[in-house]
Amino acid sequence: MAFNDFGKIFRITTFGQSHGVAIGVVIDGCPSGLPITKEEIDRELAFRAPGNNPYVSPRKEKDEVEILSGIFEGQTTGTPIALLIRNMDADSSKYESTKDLYRPGHANFTYLQKYGIFDYRGGGRASARETVARVAAGAVAKKLLSHYGIMLCSFTAELGGIAIEQPPFSCLTELKAKVLKSELFCPDEKIEAKWKEKINEAKADGDSLGAILQAVVTGLPVGLGDPVYSKLEANLASAMLSIPATKGFEIGAGFLAAKMKGSEHNDAFGTDEFGNARPVTNFAGGTLGGISTGLPLTFRVAFKPTSSIQKVQKTVTVHGEGKEFSLPPGSRHDPCVAIRANAIIEAMSALVLADALLLNRCAKL
Amino acid sequence: MAFNDFGKIFRITTFGQSHGVAIGVVIDGCPSGLPITKEEIDRELAFRAPGNNPYVSPRKEKDEVEILSGIFEGQTTGTPIALLIRNMDADSSKYESTKDLYRPGHANFTYLQKYGIFDYRGGGRASARETVARVAAGAVAKKLLSHYGIMLCSFTAELGGIAIEQPPFSCLTELKAKVLKSELFCPDEKIEAKWKEKINEAKADGDSLGAILQAVVTGLPVGLGDPVYSKLEANLASAMLSIPATKGFEIGAGFLAAKMKGSEHNDAFGTDEFGNARPVTNFAGGTLGGISTGLPLTFRVAFKPTSSIQKVQKTVTVHGEGKEFSLPPGSRHDPCVAIRANAIIEAMSALVLADALLLNRCAKL
Amino acid sequence: MAFNDFGKIFRITTFGQSHGVAIGVVIDGCPSGLPITKEEIDRELAFRAPGNNPYVSPRKEKDEVEILSGIFEGQTTGTPIALLIRNMDADSSKYESTKDLYRPGHANFTYLQKYGIFDYRGGGRASARETVARVAAGAVAKKLLSHYGIMLCSFTAELGGIAIEQPPFSCLTELKAKVLKSELFCPDEKIEAKWKEKINEAKADGDSLGAILQAVVTGLPVGLGDPVYSKLEANLASAMLSIPATKGFEIGAGFLAAKMKGSEHNDAFGTDEFGNARPVTNFAGGTLGGISTGLPLTFRVAFKPTSSIQKVQKTVTVHGEGKEFSLPPGSRHDPCVAIRANAIIEAMSALVLADALLLNRCAKL
Amino acid sequence: MAFNDFGKIFRITTFGQSHGVAIGVVIDGCPSGLPITKEEIDRELAFRAPGNNPYVSPRKEKDEVEILSGIFEGQTTGTPIALLIRNMDADSSKYESTKDLYRPGHANFTYLQKYGIFDYRGGGRASARETVARVAAGAVAKKLLSHYGIMLCSFTAELGGIAIEQPPFSCLTELKAKVLKSELFCPDEKIEAKWKEKINEAKADGDSLGAILQAVVTGLPVGLGDPVYSKLEANLASAMLSIPATKGFEIGAGFLAAKMKGSEHNDAFGTDEFGNARPVTNFAGGTLGGISTGLPLTFRVAFKPTSSIQKVQKTVTVHGEGKEFSLPPGSRHDPCVAIRANAIIEAMSALVLADALLLNRCAKL
Repeated sequence: MAFNDFGKIFRITTFGQSHGVAIGVVIDGCPSGLPITKEEIDRELAFRAPGNNPYVSPRKEKDEVEILSGIFEGQTTGTPIALLIRNMDADSSKYESTKDLYRPGHANFTYLQKYGIFDYRGGGRASARETVARVAAGAVAKKLLSHYGIMLCSFTAELGGIAIEQPPFSCLTELKAKVLKSELFCPDEKIEAKWKEKINEAKADGDSLGAILQAVVTGLPVGLGDPVYSKLEANLASAMLSIPATKGFEIGAGFLAAKMKGSEHNDAFGTDEFGNARPVTNFAGGTLGGISTGLPLTFRVAFKPTSSIQKVQKTVTVHGEGKEFSLPPGSRHDPCVAIRANAIIEAMSALVLADALLLNRCAKL
Repeated sequence: MAFNDFGKIFRITTFGQSHGVAIGVVIDGCPSGLPITKEEIDRELAFRAPGNNPYVSPRKEKDEVEILSGIFEGQTTGTPIALLIRNMDADSSKYESTKDLYRPGHANFTYLQKYGIFDYRGGGRASARETVARVAAGAVAKKLLSHYGIMLCSFTAELGGIAIEQPPFSCLTELKAKVLKSELFCPDEKIEAKWKEKINEAKADGDSLGAILQAVVTGLPVGLGDPVYSKLEANLASAMLSIPATKGFEIGAGFLAAKMKGSEHNDAFGTDEFGNARPVTNFAGGTLGGISTGLPLTFRVAFKPTSSIQKVQKTVTVHGEGKEFSLPPGSRHDPCVAIRANAIIEAMSALVLADALLLNRCAKL
Repeated sequence: MAFNDFGKIFRITTFGQSHGVAIGVVIDGCPSGLPITKEEIDRELAFRAPGNNPYVSPRKEKDEVEILSGIFEGQTTGTPIALLIRNMDADSSKYESTKDLYRPGHANFTYLQKYGIFDYRGGGRASARETVARVAAGAVAKKLLSHYGIMLCSFTAELGGIAIEQPPFSCLTELKAKVLKSELFCPDEKIEAKWKEKINEAKADGDSLGAILQAVVTGLPVGLGDPVYSKLEANLASAMLSIPATKGFEIGAGFLAAKMKGSEHNDAFGTDEFGNARPVTNFAGGTLGGISTGLPLTFRVAFKPTSSIQKVQKTVTVHGEGKEFSLPPGSRHDPCVAIRANAIIEAMSALVLADALLLNRCAKL
Repeated sequence: MAFNDFGKIFRITTFGQSHGVAIGVVIDGCPSGLPITKEEIDRELAFRAPGNNPYVSPRKEKDEVEILSGIFEGQTTGTPIALLIRNMDADSSKYESTKDLYRPGHANFTYLQKYGIFDYRGGGRASARETVARVAAGAVAKKLLSHYGIMLCSFTAELGGIAIEQPPFSCLTELKAKVLKSELFCPDEKIEAKWKEKINEAKADGDSLGAILQAVVTGLPVGLGDPVYSKLEANLASAMLSIPATKGFEIGAGFLAAKMKGSEHNDAFGTDEFGNARPVTNFAGGTLGGISTGLPLTFRVAFKPTSSIQKVQKTVTVHGEGKEFSLPPGSRHDPCVAIRANAIIEAMSALVLADALLLNRCAKL
């Protein structure tokens, strides 16, 4: 596991397992002079944390960051920013009994085969708990982006097979407010109601659901992204597929583009209100040749249903013995992991974009 | 454009523009002792080259590699392998007239904004011509993989909205033979016939088509992939989205997983013929927690329709002047760029896997 | 300050300032299965810590590590190892009065110019306090090396212009024991006595001394090092010159080689006791072409005298005003920073070698 | 040999062996808009090439660059710049007879042990011939630096044990002119005469000489260098020790600093002619805390004597058989490899500084 870092200049290195002492991140390469507070980071952690509604895990991850280094008198100093989040609500005992079972949909199988050892408590490093470090780092990246007028919003776009209509992106503050008001981060109240039914059904059945999240970024200048292997969409795809439970990524028209004709998909060029050349439609989703066009960046991420379910599943032990396995009723798992992943998607997107923003300073003489 | 390299240990750096002197690649980190010949590389270049059938570009890219370094007496020496492919059939004159036009769906807009200068001839570095270097490097990576019994096959899975049935992956040599026999790299003859009709219609109309390609890799050991940011699927997603014209990536059930329940999507564990624990189904697509499970790796890539079409499109010049633009009839463009991208997908996959294979040697004490 | 990481596969990222909350390190890429305890790390921290003798700083840096992640049931798991050392004995108040002065020989001048902000307390990130993280990481690297029979020893070779004779390297355990018995890490008791006089004189005078340290590594296999830009000596040179107060690096005969003839400097080849080809002398210092020869690796590092002195020095303020500056008598500074740097040299060498050892696994098919 | 690249943003990847088809380099990350011509690169290659005087090798390396990509209409485009130098005067036949001998001071021993295969002709990748690629890349880096008023000069400072006096650095154009006029790149005519005698003696004796080179860089802004592991001197040390035949690196007072007192070595601060704070002396050699101070950067590099000599040396074959070995009289080797390395030192320094210059754009908000 040699590559627990992400980014080139604005680069994070994360550490920590689900039931270890702490989860943390070192942000290396953040420019000096950025004002950032513990409160701003905690706010993002809260966005990610399980809420107190019936649609997410009842675990209490009241996460709070400790700033260990890199910030002095309220500003970044250019030195590495280390952020620590202690693990609190971790009850490891219940993992003892299943530690020799390969759990369907889980990574203990591959970790054990690869490393010969696995911290089985709560999923170890393979647990989505790991993403709290990403969200903490993302808070700093978001602050940097906001300094340059760049804003991000991720929301749930499809759940249990029911999709929302594409919301308008003209005012992202408005969209973001709507999304944050929803327990499922859904900008459409009617659809949200249907999703809640779906979730209630799945929960009652001891089952789980998948979903698709969508992200929008506005305020990007033209020019972010470094072809050919660091195309903006390549870096975003890598970022998204590194999030636990993700199964797909698409930008702009995405997989639908495969069904379109060139004359339908090509975005014509025109001029914007300031006379700048810009594409007039946005099937491309905000990039051309891997470089941002100045139009909103839009992409979608597919999440598989939560692997931890209460239904009986077939499996084997590490000794090859066949077993049946099911989580006991009352297990504290999200019925749909995607919901809380909106915070992670925003964080990872912010990391990709902060890095691209800095790298772009080196493009011209 | 600081990141024209790909990979960590088995790492390539590519260079060259569409109408420049040459396209090339330096492969750094290939282990010593691998037998490889010019012919083996040329064979992969031929797989990528436009054929002499009506469904691809009539350009003559009779590509031939020159091995500049790194191979001695038929074997890799551990030193960097430099491969050069001279550009031949490049007629630059016809790009003169449109060099000040932002071409819909093309990258000259973003390149000019980012770099202030653009080699407009044939799309410059943003041209898919660049991928010939990836295919040359991929030939070496494939040879390395084949040494360890790993085999790859990419094929066209959907074109113009018509999809094939999932072919069997039990014998990849057979599938690969079928695919190579098809002018559209389609393993299903009946569907291929329908696609040809679609292509003929689009061509007659001066239009273009999108498609979805699918790749399968067999023979992978358990354990490839480095969580958490170098998950196998994250690296593959990055590799795929770095290919020109790609709009989406999905692994295993992919976007469909978002519509499934946990009880449907989770792959139960059993034992294989040798008594090894293995997932018994493969909705995951060959990884768990970003690490290969030993089952076939399967993923799909969405391609937009070719941007170069003969229909009239609206655009502006670099001076902001509105224009209409269309390619003259007889322009040498692929009606569906995805078809020839099968070679590129195999090459990029091989690069990701060769790298993961070497890195995995460092996982345990 | 984008590059607070060191190494390619066995890679560390460090963080923390002199008077911040904590100093720490994340080790990424350590193979799984390595047994390592808090005590083993603390022992190395003690080796670096100011002792209770008159020749080093009277500061109390009773450093103790907290293992935050990556170790489970006494073994590394392959996941990132995070180590934290809290800052204890830090009295920041006395730095208030001089925070606007550019201190001769210190980095607050360059940091302020580069970043526009500087955590002036105790030298901030530029303080040698930062190296405690390197020593903690080095403890893990040393454990890995010892698993493969590789041993390191750094000692003081010249101080205040007086040099020791080259000690024998045939039994490194013996040399190491001798070195650790000495308050100045000097393997020669008579010379040590002279050095102590020199230090006492300098201290009485409010002045400081420079020194040269030497390191020896035995048990290295042939083949470590990756030409051409990751030659073993290139990586060691980079590692050494990254240590605060270092001014030079030489391997083998070093600068003396420039005065020799080829017939004197060339190491003839013979065979060792096992019949293996080996150089019979070692002017080269253990490498050829950047790759280890299997002979002891020997190199030397020059340290400038401690910059913090009690003599009056000329300087200017951040506002350009001329000032005189001297540390008050009783300031807690090492009269010769090099002495305690022996621990740092061993740590950085171990990091370079652990990385080279892993990378070498990828050299051949 | 996974790391044939150097630099972070302004990054080179080189390839090629002594007697292969060609030597080359890909420069990735050079900003767009830099004017550069083939002639400017060829001029640097000539500076490195063996001259027609009796003090260097009589080989004819009339090196000429072919620009393969990255430059359009006389300017860099931001895309990778590939430069190729064909190998011409390579007579491989004479290496046949000694291919099974471990040659004292040469790397065929370590390469064969590490890789199991070695292109023995002319030293393969371990030959100094490889550095022609660095010099070609350095020409581009120098051009970038000159755009910002930064100038470099490397000269021979000691040869065969005889040292020059430190020349003045106030006008680097003058110094550079003097150096280029000298066949030994020596700024002092009287010392040059003595060196020539030494070289003639060594040649007559079939022996070789070592030397020390010194480099000076002027016009650097304050702020280049990225602590803590990418300190300017750490990157320079790594660059220098990656050059074949180098044995040591020192910056500023270097190893002499180890003999000095703090009160002697500390550079007091004052103000320059523009009222800017600056150190008034330069024992530090142009950096503090790894970051440039704005004063001239000065460092020295030790070179061992040429390993190829005509005297009889003891060695063994790859089969462990004892042999005597000597080059035949008339062999085309430099009596002192250091002389021609002045071009390489300037090139590698330029690469380090170009990279630091770009990275520094990301330091502040």
